[in-house]
Amino acid sequence: MAFMIAQRAFLKLYMITLVEKHRGYGYQMLEELKQDFKSLGYEPPQSEIYRSLHDLVEDGILYRSRHQKLGVEYQEVIMYHFTEDGHDKAQLYKKQVKEDLDRCQALLQKAVQDNY
Amino acid sequence: MAFMIAQRAFLKLYMITLVEKHRGYGYQMLEELKQDFKSLGYEPPQSEIYRSLHDLVEDGILYRSRHQKLGVEYQEVIMYHFTEDGHDKAQLYKKQVKEDLDRCQALLQKAVQDNY
Repeated sequence: MAFMIAQRAFLKLYMITLVEKHRGYGYQMLEELKQDFKSLGYEPPQSEIYRSLHDLVEDGILYRSRHQKLGVEYQEVIMYHFTEDGHDKAQLYKKQVKEDLDRCQALLQKAVQDNY
Repeated sequence: MAFMIAQRAFLKLYMITLVEKHRGYGYQMLEELKQDFKSLGYEPPQSEIYRSLHDLVEDGILYRSRHQKLGVEYQEVIMYHFTEDGHDKAQLYKKQVKEDLDRCQALLQKAVQDNY
């Protein structure tokens, strides 16, 4: 068991939630998360966000589709969707991550109580 | 800025507190921490505990002393103490770690709110 939750699991969780909210646009997910965490002093690395999406595709939870963006210049947009049983798999994954989040919160809470 | 607090910083914090409580016996510190975290499913690795003590010595916060344990067989006990300005330095370090613990707690709390 790792000491703290892995950044990858943390980001996969957010990716799943964004796809649940039908906001599964590759680039926007990145920007949304960056903004979202700015006040907490954490900047999710772009490479880790793309790896977490890659993992979710490998896990059979998400699949990609490519769309052409309307406009003068050619621009391709990548969207992420749940596979047929992807949403069920995602719920199971979220449940596991929740246990890890709870465990980590308990560890941090204990450290504050024990040392301050 | 790392995603989550480093295990090393987390353990250095506990080592400082154990020395503050005059429980700075090398081997016992290890056993005490192992027991302490059992219920939370975290086992501090022995190597990381020794490295955290090593770091605190390098930082000029702690120093080691060697004592011979009373008994039939020869046994050496290593104790850790604060250097002359070690306790002040330790308070500064604890303050920094507290900020990181607070930051991590906020991140985990946000993840629970945002995804469940």
